[in-house]
Amino acid sequence: MKIGIIGGGSIGLLFAGYLAEYHDVTLYTRTERQASEINQNGVTIDIENTSNTYRVQAVSSKVSVIGEDILFIAVKQYILKDVLSQIKDLEKVQTVCFLQNGMGHLDFMNQLENTNILVSVVEHGALKFNDTTIIHTGIGRTKLAIFKGDFPTFDIPVKEFQIEFQNDWYEMITSKLIANAVINPLTALYGVKNGRLLQNEYFKNQVRTLFREIVSVIPCNEEQMWELVTTICKNTAQNKSSMLRDIEEGRKTEIDAILGYVLAEAKKIEREVAITQFLYDSIKGMERRGG
Amino acid sequence: MKIGIIGGGSIGLLFAGYLAEYHDVTLYTRTERQASEINQNGVTIDIENTSNTYRVQAVSSKVSVIGEDILFIAVKQYILKDVLSQIKDLEKVQTVCFLQNGMGHLDFMNQLENTNILVSVVEHGALKFNDTTIIHTGIGRTKLAIFKGDFPTFDIPVKEFQIEFQNDWYEMITSKLIANAVINPLTALYGVKNGRLLQNEYFKNQVRTLFREIVSVIPCNEEQMWELVTTICKNTAQNKSSMLRDIEEGRKTEIDAILGYVLAEAKKIEREVAITQFLYDSIKGMERRGG
Repeated sequence: MKIGIIGGGSIGLLFAGYLAEYHDVTLYTRTERQASEINQNGVTIDIENTSNTYRVQAVSSKVSVIGEDILFIAVKQYILKDVLSQIKDLEKVQTVCFLQNGMGHLDFMNQLENTNILVSVVEHGALKFNDTTIIHTGIGRTKLAIFKGDFPTFDIPVKEFQIEFQNDWYEMITSKLIANAVINPLTALYGVKNGRLLQNEYFKNQVRTLFREIVSVIPCNEEQMWELVTTICKNTAQNKSSMLRDIEEGRKTEIDAILGYVLAEAKKIEREVAITQFLYDSIKGMERRGG
Repeated sequence: MKIGIIGGGSIGLLFAGYLAEYHDVTLYTRTERQASEINQNGVTIDIENTSNTYRVQAVSSKVSVIGEDILFIAVKQYILKDVLSQIKDLEKVQTVCFLQNGMGHLDFMNQLENTNILVSVVEHGALKFNDTTIIHTGIGRTKLAIFKGDFPTFDIPVKEFQIEFQNDWYEMITSKLIANAVINPLTALYGVKNGRLLQNEYFKNQVRTLFREIVSVIPCNEEQMWELVTTICKNTAQNKSSMLRDIEEGRKTEIDAILGYVLAEAKKIEREVAITQFLYDSIKGMERRGG
């Protein structure tokens, strides 16, 4: 099976490495330098105490895609628009799968004419070590759901890289969105690991307040959703959220795809969401705190 | 003139030193150790490149006050109740002057039977270096206003320690409260110096939102007050607020006397102040972020 992956960040490299063992993978990178390094050295995944290197073909992303069976889009939500507009022959790909967090990619998906469009929730933890190496810090699952069309046949017999098919794309993606919308901004604002949000009584109140505002805007099963949010905080108690890491390292965050989406939905139904707005502005301000 | 000062922190030492040059000063400290060091070495004030040492008589605060003409209370608002309940013969003092920020001391003032009760706004910057030495980092003024009774005659011909008498105690103290209520929690939450609140457009929005909530609860001249808040941010652009320093150094903050007061006033008039509540809980949570 021919698989394309757009984006040489931690998730792009994770997919490229594991998928390359069983499929013919092309990784589209932003820089020529990264493509050339991957062609020379392959993609290395460090997991626990072992290190595996996979042969991956890499090209700089300013070329046409080659009509792959499936193309994974593994770039940050906030550069998605630019990246998609640069890909030539995207319509020749049968199946496109989006790996972004949040809801920022929904608008783009509606414009695509590919046969199958999939959305995902990626539960892996992965840190990029250098242009060819990532550390697989947390083994999770990749959940896929159909936004349009059908599932491709797809076999990946790798224990550390399980793929799970889900029925309801909207439920799958809103569950992740709501969890991200509660946990990410608060941990980034307070500079704490996920577990502290429940261990500190004041922070727990904030989690509740924010959760109530968000579920008043995004329809869901509130009881199950609260259970999910608290379970994630407990299971990832020692982890820093991606938004906290982005803020600590002076990077742009994914706040627009997460709380930005909640604000847009709130506006549609004319509901006031003062805390969501405050947090959105706070994270936007903290992104440029230094200068 | 006999002057007593309760509290051997930075403000207590600042007052003790400057006042001791012209008056007979007794400093009441929490620990025997500090009292003994001050009796041996005096109080030293470092300012710019000079260092002056003043003779001050110090005693541990678990004794009676000696009927001073004026007694300055220079302890943090959150230990005020405990400290006042331990002072014997407080009623023998003619004039009591409170040096706390915020409004947390108003309740206590109403219970005192002394002839004169003064409130203050202390604009000095002072950092405690050790038990007997402070660095006078910012020369400001001490504004005093009458809460009850009359002003004492009071002469301090020290250029670096000007005292100014104000007419309207409520206006004086609410102005400082509102400025503190806006600047302190936001700088502490975002970990930024005062000036950043206006230089960053997102933070400036937050300043406006919080300001609007606070002045909807605390009556004031809104235009003058906004002018004051923005002027303070500009004039102290390179300073860290006391609340930011408290959070950075893992100390308890004065949030109860500041936003706690705003919340209590909002409750009286049944006004919802969502951002104020969120910030109050955030600072409370950050005080115990670590453990």
